Amino acid sequence: MSPSFETLTWHGDRLGSLHLLDQTLLPAEINIIDCKNVETVWEAIKMLRVRGAPAIGIAAAYGVCIGIQDLPADANHEMLRWKLHDVAAYLASSRPTAVNLFWALDRMKVKADALGATKSVPEIQDILFSEAKAIHEEDRHICRSIGRFGQELVHDGSTWLTHCNAGGLATADYGTALAVFFAATESGKKIHVYADETRPLLQGARLTAWELMQRGIDVTVICDSMAALVMRQGKIDGVVVGADRISANGDTANKIGTYGVAVLAKAHNVPFYVAAPVSTFDLSLSDGAGIPIEERDADEICCGFGKRTVPEGVKVYNPAFDVTSADLIAGIITERGIISPVNRENVERMVRG
Amino acid sequence: MSPSFETLTWHGDRLGSLHLLDQTLLPAEINIIDCKNVETVWEAIKMLRVRGAPAIGIAAAYGVCIGIQDLPADANHEMLRWKLHDVAAYLASSRPTAVNLFWALDRMKVKADALGATKSVPEIQDILFSEAKAIHEEDRHICRSIGRFGQELVHDGSTWLTHCNAGGLATADYGTALAVFFAATESGKKIHVYADETRPLLQGARLTAWELMQRGIDVTVICDSMAALVMRQGKIDGVVVGADRISANGDTANKIGTYGVAVLAKAHNVPFYVAAPVSTFDLSLSDGAGIPIEERDADEICCGFGKRTVPEGVKVYNPAFDVTSADLIAGIITERGIISPVNRENVERMVRG
Repeated sequence: MSPSFETLTWHGDRLGSLHLLDQTLLPAEINIIDCKNVETVWEAIKMLRVRGAPAIGIAAAYGVCIGIQDLPADANHEMLRWKLHDVAAYLASSRPTAVNLFWALDRMKVKADALGATKSVPEIQDILFSEAKAIHEEDRHICRSIGRFGQELVHDGSTWLTHCNAGGLATADYGTALAVFFAATESGKKIHVYADETRPLLQGARLTAWELMQRGIDVTVICDSMAALVMRQGKIDGVVVGADRISANGDTANKIGTYGVAVLAKAHNVPFYVAAPVSTFDLSLSDGAGIPIEERDADEICCGFGKRTVPEGVKVYNPAFDVTSADLIAGIITERGIISPVNRENVERMVRG
Repeated sequence: MSPSFETLTWHGDRLGSLHLLDQTLLPAEINIIDCKNVETVWEAIKMLRVRGAPAIGIAAAYGVCIGIQDLPADANHEMLRWKLHDVAAYLASSRPTAVNLFWALDRMKVKADALGATKSVPEIQDILFSEAKAIHEEDRHICRSIGRFGQELVHDGSTWLTHCNAGGLATADYGTALAVFFAATESGKKIHVYADETRPLLQGARLTAWELMQRGIDVTVICDSMAALVMRQGKIDGVVVGADRISANGDTANKIGTYGVAVLAKAHNVPFYVAAPVSTFDLSLSDGAGIPIEERDADEICCGFGKRTVPEGVKVYNPAFDVTSADLIAGIITERGIISPVNRENVERMVRG
């Protein structure tokens, strides 16, 4: 079974456009956004129309291509460089936590900088477009590779818990955390997955449940507050989640609520895994304390269901992420293998390769 | 500041009716349900229009009065007894977990049984009506008393977390868990409270935030999944929650998510308290394993606020309560004093005492 959606696709040649599946409307509505300018890409990232660390990175790389499309025919290298950096800085301002965004933008800038003036401006535009496509294509292989390594942790007949959505909608192919479940299923194992609904934006209920159902995996949605009970009931054999940024010691920023799930998993002797490409590691940060945590609009909590649920005038705190310390993580599943135990040395070895 | 609402009020004499504030519509709409027959009371309890263990008990006691109002003028004792037990059994079928419901119904039956045929049928109807009013009135004193004992745990300038709503809307007066905050504030302490929104029905966001705001207490609403982070940030000095049933060893059933909060509190060295009247104890149960846990309709999660958030066909698990084991509870605040440490002997002494 293959999924009936494409999270992001490029249409046309270098002068084409980026099509994004608007994830804020799922599962009720399937709507494709045709991004023909960089503002549309920025807005789509900001508003979580495209979300998930790897997908944000890919969208940003294509966003750079779109941003440098409209250079005048006689643009010189200086203009290209200025425009590229301007567009990258703008896209970088969309969301602060997922490092894959900055990683992808840096990769595009480094590519351009390395070319310098050795190629013509249109040639550089072509090469940068190829770079974006390479980032996109590489992510497909990364998903498959994470799935391959991760599925070895999954026993036939086991039951797993995941939080938020680290699936096909968050990547170019079939995800990071969910890749583990998909690969396990492809290898003939029968599994059951509990999906935390993941307040405030319900990515678990809306997106993870949808993806798992589409691929025929037995899924049960629970409220975030029910994870402790199902662990206590002995129903959960393991937890896998994605990641938005991982520091050099293995501390992992991921969707708000992940840290709580990790503490609960430890208390119930349930192994807790993170699945993420090496582009999610930020070795410039010694530990998770340095990871910037995005705070989002109160209305995501107050008016999430199209109806006000918090009285007017009441304060709301809406951090979008939290940081799970490395000691709570049994292993980090990457496209190069599994980091376990999670510590500075093992992270360094895997990421620096 | 006193609250601008009455959770439940009796209007008229014995032949009057029970007015319930429909809590499913709060805070958007203030609507009073006039319960003139027992079916309306049953439906209000079932649908959580009236909720909170003590309030359910009071509503059920009045429900019995309503149920025996329409006996024929020449009804004999046998008819009264039959009708009373029939009505009580019907009301008992509304919700399974909160023991205060069964406690109040039993108290009404015991009263009637004790009277036997020593009084006329109308006299017994009068006496049962007085008993319901007594249950109602006693709960006011219980709330104040719980507040008085509990507020001694609260330091000036401290920050507390609560889950669900154990406030004025759950009781005859100003609550059990929230009574602790209200009494602390009345005694001049300045506190800050984080309120878990409490999925699926958002009693924290809708009701607790509303009550705290009405009484001028600084309140911040968070999603349930954010409790771990605010504890990790060192923001929380203590947790207080209500209870729906407490077994003889102190294991406590309360709104789903409470158990997770208790595990997280322990992991962060935050003291976790339960506030409940002694009528919440069920000494017939040795431990929490025997407490029946209500499972509610999947639509509470899937279609919480007029919008479908879980794909059609996906399974949903919706337990309404969980059980927090006694070893996670620093103390149980009752109207007779604080049980601490929480163990079989101390529970027995306080409840039988």
